[in-house]
Amino acid sequence: MERTLFEPEHELFRESYRKFLEQHVAPNHAKWEEQNIVDRGVWVEAGKQGFLGTAAPEEFGGGGVKDFRYNAIVTEETTRGGYSGIGFTLHNDVVAPYLIELANDEQKQRWLPGFCSGELITAIAMTEPGTGSDLQGIKTKAVRDGDDWVLNGSKTFITNGINADLIIVVACTDPEKGAQGFSLLVVERDMPGFERGRNLDKIGMKAQDTAELSFTDVRVPAANLLGEEGMGFIYLMQNLPQERLSIAVVAAAAMESALDMTIQYCRDRKAFGKSIGKFQNTRFVLAELATETTATRIMVDKFIELLNADKLTVQEAAMAKWWTTENQVKLIDRCLQLHGGYGYMKEYPIAKAYMDSRVQTIYGGTTEIMKEIIGRGLNL
Amino acid sequence: MERTLFEPEHELFRESYRKFLEQHVAPNHAKWEEQNIVDRGVWVEAGKQGFLGTAAPEEFGGGGVKDFRYNAIVTEETTRGGYSGIGFTLHNDVVAPYLIELANDEQKQRWLPGFCSGELITAIAMTEPGTGSDLQGIKTKAVRDGDDWVLNGSKTFITNGINADLIIVVACTDPEKGAQGFSLLVVERDMPGFERGRNLDKIGMKAQDTAELSFTDVRVPAANLLGEEGMGFIYLMQNLPQERLSIAVVAAAAMESALDMTIQYCRDRKAFGKSIGKFQNTRFVLAELATETTATRIMVDKFIELLNADKLTVQEAAMAKWWTTENQVKLIDRCLQLHGGYGYMKEYPIAKAYMDSRVQTIYGGTTEIMKEIIGRGLNL
Ligand SMILES: Cc1cc2nc3c(=O)[nH]c(=O)nc-3n(C[C@H](O)[C@H](O)[C@H](O)COP(=O)(O)OP(=O)(O)OC[C@H]3O[C@@H](n4cnc5c(N)ncnc54)[C@H](O)[C@@H]3O)c2cc1C
Ligand SMILES: Cc1cc2nc3c(=O)[nH]c(=O)nc-3n(C[C@H](O)[C@H](O)[C@H](O)COP(=O)(O)OP(=O)(O)OC[C@H]3O[C@@H](n4cnc5c(N)ncnc54)[C@H](O)[C@@H]3O)c2cc1C
Repeated sequence: MERTLFEPEHELFRESYRKFLEQHVAPNHAKWEEQNIVDRGVWVEAGKQGFLGTAAPEEFGGGGVKDFRYNAIVTEETTRGGYSGIGFTLHNDVVAPYLIELANDEQKQRWLPGFCSGELITAIAMTEPGTGSDLQGIKTKAVRDGDDWVLNGSKTFITNGINADLIIVVACTDPEKGAQGFSLLVVERDMPGFERGRNLDKIGMKAQDTAELSFTDVRVPAANLLGEEGMGFIYLMQNLPQERLSIAVVAAAAMESALDMTIQYCRDRKAFGKSIGKFQNTRFVLAELATETTATRIMVDKFIELLNADKLTVQEAAMAKWWTTENQVKLIDRCLQLHGGYGYMKEYPIAKAYMDSRVQTIYGGTTEIMKEIIGRGLNL
Repeated sequence: MERTLFEPEHELFRESYRKFLEQHVAPNHAKWEEQNIVDRGVWVEAGKQGFLGTAAPEEFGGGGVKDFRYNAIVTEETTRGGYSGIGFTLHNDVVAPYLIELANDEQKQRWLPGFCSGELITAIAMTEPGTGSDLQGIKTKAVRDGDDWVLNGSKTFITNGINADLIIVVACTDPEKGAQGFSLLVVERDMPGFERGRNLDKIGMKAQDTAELSFTDVRVPAANLLGEEGMGFIYLMQNLPQERLSIAVVAAAAMESALDMTIQYCRDRKAFGKSIGKFQNTRFVLAELATETTATRIMVDKFIELLNADKLTVQEAAMAKWWTTENQVKLIDRCLQLHGGYGYMKEYPIAKAYMDSRVQTIYGGTTEIMKEIIGRGLNL
């Protein structure tokens, strides 16, 4: 299906990002999977070439265009290459809006240049060992003491958690007020009392560092409060739709690439004297998957347009998140099956896609939570 | 559901096998997963305790009872423990019948004692790089030369492929005759020209050695022909139903254990102030999975009875193979989802079950091939 979303300038951007991946990511990704983390150098290179913070103001080294299509291109090409270790999408799609929209001038000057140059890798820490879906149940708290917030608590499953230099930590600054007492504090690399736990051992996304973080009496300067005190939960609610659409962008691209590789495999692989694509079952399965991939693509592209026009609703973002990722997981499972025994071998890209994809229906809000959100909107 | 399949003697056997697993497998399995192969010592210990070759005659050190319930117990308990590296099921359920039923007296004397003592680890090599589902398409061939067969070809995906001492190789001994020209040749560890390739890197079953094997002018003595020349394909057809039921036994046990651990998890894990088992969606999902697990268990136990009475048809074995394994894969996927982010962490047994299980719908004949077999029986 022809996509009508992009203009020529986007395609030039895509071309240059592809080249970047070929030159700086492709030769290293297997090594990064071994070491369970990417080298920081790839961030700096990405920054140098303008792939980080396309939406940040030019004065800080950003691209100066708030157009989610650029974000989508980075995510799509990263996904198509199977480069699941690269945390740019979290940096650009999830963290950037907080820094661009909530940071004051002084903070922007401190953080955005590094954000855009790739020297400051970012993360956002909401989830805790005891609570993920129920964000309101977090226990991490910060108490004001003079010019500092004293932060205590622990977070888990934090993407870029080992590499991150700047971490937006969701903390409770007023326990009386529940979710109205949440604030966003930016924790920096070397603050005393901030420790990183293990780099978690996951089913897939092997080159992605996902970590536990702990905060023991960390003195976070008041100057590191992002936005207003007590507004944290609202900021999160405002930004989660973009995070969710961003995960749907991964889903659509992952479906297209798994489908393509499987169609090719079914053309090439022979059994009983013909290519396995000639069996009616194969054709029907692939016909269904091709249809679902097209439907997914149409939804995602439409929602990118809506997001760009500031019209994407919370419910629509939730629809995109659960539906596309469940489609993705199912499609990759069916594609693996069509690879026979080779589908179970890690050297085959479909096996890697299988392991990488399974988290998609979980992080950024589970399928169940997305359905809750949509259901709430139905006035039942 | 209460199972009525077993007698007290089976339960004693189960108890002793469980103890064996606790003592000799549990402390080592993680290490074996690291090294991608189990230590041979565990085979010898299993042999010593009577868990290998329960169906082999007592004079050769076997259990002397042809009762698939003993096989099922070994498989069930191995599966419940998550000990996917242990290749006993292949040895007992798949290879044993060939040796017990087809070997002549001289061969029995040479092989069965080691088979039962665990000193001779076995494998069966049908699949080739170019053909799996289409067994008739194999290219490995053996040409008679004096008292030997000269064997050439290569096999892949062979379970126990690195550890195996005895490998039943399916070869074409009369190319004119197609499948009527297949024979089974037993290749032994040190035969010149027999080489093992890589230990394949799989999505799961990390402690299981799965290998490529190659044969270059291997001189296999005529005395290592199993059964009659040209009967290989028929022997395979006779024995594949037991192999398929054996895979269904894994599926049923894996479903029960994944369901149990997930129910427990949903009782313990809290979100929004209650255990996640209290959400209606969780209850409905688990209600469906519990129903499917029960249906799977009933089918498997019934078919074990039929197999023991020599009444299990090829179609029924195919039904068991595809339906139970597809149920298993689906159930484990849904159970992983209910674990939230923890489901994606390798240290959680559900994550391991996810990676271990995916091959179940593929090996021993894919779901698609099973449906072909059943469909053929419907006289359409
Ligand atoms: C690889 C990875 C990267 C991640 N990156 C980040 C990150 O960068 N930053 C961050 O903050 N977090 C991150 N997360 C955490 C992720 O967002 C959470 O895992 C997710 O939100 C689910 O929370 P949980 O794991 O606590 O599951 P739980 O909330 O415990 O949920 C368990 C199960 O219960 C279900 N459930 C919960 N509530 C309900 C309900 N009301 N109705 C029905 N069912 C319900 C869930 O859907 C799920 O199936 C990451 C997780 C992973 C695995
Ligand atoms: C971990 C593991 C262990 C194994 N252990 C052993 C072992 O010990 N010994 C051994 O001999 N083999 C073993 N195998 C091989 C296994 O049996 C084969 O992988 C399996 O039979 C499928 O063959 P294939 O991989 O060549 O897939 P293919 O035959 O190439 O099939 C590819 C796809 O085409 C489909 N297809 C094929 N024919 C048809 C048709 N007629 N109609 C519709 N669809 C069709 C298949 O279902 C599959 O989805 C093992 C495999 C694995 C992964």
